[in-house]
Amino acid sequence: MCELLGMSANTPTDICFSFTGLMERGGRTGPHRDGWGIVFYEGAGARAFHDPNPSAQSPLANWVKAYPIKSQIVLSHIRQANVGSTSLENTHPFQRELWGRSFSFAHNGQIPDVKKRPLNFYTPIGQTDSEHAFCWMLDRLRQKFPVLPESHEQWLPVVALACSELAKLGVFNMLLSDGNFLVSFCSSKLYWITRQAPFNQASLKDAQLTVNFANETALHDKVTIIATEPLTQNEQWQPYIKGEFRAFLNGDSLFVRTGD
Amino acid sequence: MCELLGMSANTPTDICFSFTGLMERGGRTGPHRDGWGIVFYEGAGARAFHDPNPSAQSPLANWVKAYPIKSQIVLSHIRQANVGSTSLENTHPFQRELWGRSFSFAHNGQIPDVKKRPLNFYTPIGQTDSEHAFCWMLDRLRQKFPVLPESHEQWLPVVALACSELAKLGVFNMLLSDGNFLVSFCSSKLYWITRQAPFNQASLKDAQLTVNFANETALHDKVTIIATEPLTQNEQWQPYIKGEFRAFLNGDSLFVRTGD
Repeated sequence: MCELLGMSANTPTDICFSFTGLMERGGRTGPHRDGWGIVFYEGAGARAFHDPNPSAQSPLANWVKAYPIKSQIVLSHIRQANVGSTSLENTHPFQRELWGRSFSFAHNGQIPDVKKRPLNFYTPIGQTDSEHAFCWMLDRLRQKFPVLPESHEQWLPVVALACSELAKLGVFNMLLSDGNFLVSFCSSKLYWITRQAPFNQASLKDAQLTVNFANETALHDKVTIIATEPLTQNEQWQPYIKGEFRAFLNGDSLFVRTGD
Repeated sequence: MCELLGMSANTPTDICFSFTGLMERGGRTGPHRDGWGIVFYEGAGARAFHDPNPSAQSPLANWVKAYPIKSQIVLSHIRQANVGSTSLENTHPFQRELWGRSFSFAHNGQIPDVKKRPLNFYTPIGQTDSEHAFCWMLDRLRQKFPVLPESHEQWLPVVALACSELAKLGVFNMLLSDGNFLVSFCSSKLYWITRQAPFNQASLKDAQLTVNFANETALHDKVTIIATEPLTQNEQWQPYIKGEFRAFLNGDSLFVRTGD
């Protein structure tokens, strides 16, 4: 299994604290030795770092932990390989362009039979079932909406439906973004937390690190973090229920669908 | 104007030496203050670093200079903005997937009228004429070859022809790669050099740095570097002629077309 980490915020925020916790699970406190990746959105652009090496020993991960890249949307993933070798092209998050937007996707779970589904426009570069699932979802969106539809209320339900369908094939917890929304789906395990005023202190589970968010934030900041497992030990994380689809905009839950 | 840097090698090679020279031109010895980017291919995957800040003062550029990422194909670009703001989404190299391969593209010059050409499959994320040109070229390739053709001798001429056509719109020096070939086209200025045994010493023009390649290489290594301006002062760089298209594989010129 792999672990996911996502952030949606109403102001550019660095993810150093949460990322530090996640990276420990990549070979030290957790078994996810088969690479890690992170995407930071900045305007319409996306900045991605990928490494097929264990995150706990990665010089690039150390750089990303130390250098506070501020972003309103972040997706990250640490991998324990199931399908596909340990290589750069199999390292999540995957990225593709649709509607002139940079889409990113990271998956936790296994849905090997998705590879039997034919693809039309998007073709995987690597061998994972995850990238195949991403290509299939974007194919669906593109077939339904060749150009960007007027409202997210048109395209988000298509993603929600695709997620429910993919979850029938196995374990499918995922994060996806188009640079505006952070979209999440839970088939087995996922948690979220929104931090806003009054801000408190939080301590990582996986490393000796405590942050007092009151010192790091402004009054109206709102930052939502999504993770496979709660990253802190003294905060109240919300568990997703099975089949829950949740799209965040600027840290707010904007669109929620729960299972069939 | 911008500057281009490319590498094609027959063995994984780091580009720290050449990249150090190029980065100096990003705000110190040159005027290219509007961002920089680099793509390293690793297997079928591509590792990209982009920064809309001047390369001479970029902490990320310092990290990339210091950490020897070994690759057989590298594309890099430093930007002096003409069309499109200084932002991440306008920072070359641009990337798209075609035929399950990760394509990258960087452009030096201006061809504003390319934006009048309609696009079909690929849509720019930013505002540059360069990204529009890239999308247009990939559209052409995709229309001609919906799936990867058997031989590069089928698709490389399509790229060569597209380059000649784009060069009629203005200045169009470019580097493109599919992860196998490093493809180059010169409409006004571009140089290349192949380093192979017997290896010699080389000194950068833009920084106090000398490398003796004899100490860094093995007997059968072959490394071709392409750049807008020669990066070293004591080597013989080959100038491209106007309209020259040159595709390298493993450091060798495999496919060459010159002017009309």
